[in-house]
Amino acid sequence: MIHIIAKNSVKKDQIETFKVLTKELILKSKEEEGCIAYDLYEDMNNPTVLTFIEIWADEEAIEQHNKSEHFKKIVPKLGKLVEDKEVKLYKKVPINLQTD
Amino acid sequence: MIHIIAKNSVKKDQIETFKVLTKELILKSKEEEGCIAYDLYEDMNNPTVLTFIEIWADEEAIEQHNKSEHFKKIVPKLGKLVEDKEVKLYKKVPINLQTD
Repeated sequence: MIHIIAKNSVKKDQIETFKVLTKELILKSKEEEGCIAYDLYEDMNNPTVLTFIEIWADEEAIEQHNKSEHFKKIVPKLGKLVEDKEVKLYKKVPINLQTD
Repeated sequence: MIHIIAKNSVKKDQIETFKVLTKELILKSKEEEGCIAYDLYEDMNNPTVLTFIEIWADEEAIEQHNKSEHFKKIVPKLGKLVEDKEVKLYKKVPINLQTD
């Protein structure tokens, strides 16, 4: 399982447009094979920070997602509304390895 | 429900110590009232980035967590092992509001 944290610093006057555009992306991504979670979150201390928290089954599912029609149509549009963007892919640190 | 993304840039020679120290914090936090998820994740492209992805029932649960013995004992120790730290609290953007 892979978690993606995709943090966007959205231009102040584009926040509503950003949210509207993400709706189709979220609904269609949730239908994809291997998509376990895919939602948009707002920083409680800064409404210009809008972050996707996603969970995918594996790298293959993410590759398919990046090639999907909805991704290729919507993500470049979102890119024009942000000042900064950070996408990180994470794997869980197994708790049984955290021993000295 | 509140998501916390707590990202740590850990000093290169302190990664294993950081992971070992988090074990007790994770196990005890998971037992807390209102803790829905609490795990440590490693950036797949940069092993010095170790991030807690947490889900809490509400702000009250987070306040209790911040006052807990395990938090007060372990979090300051982790703070000495990092070069940089970013903690963000997030609320989900309801999909039904994302309409134009």
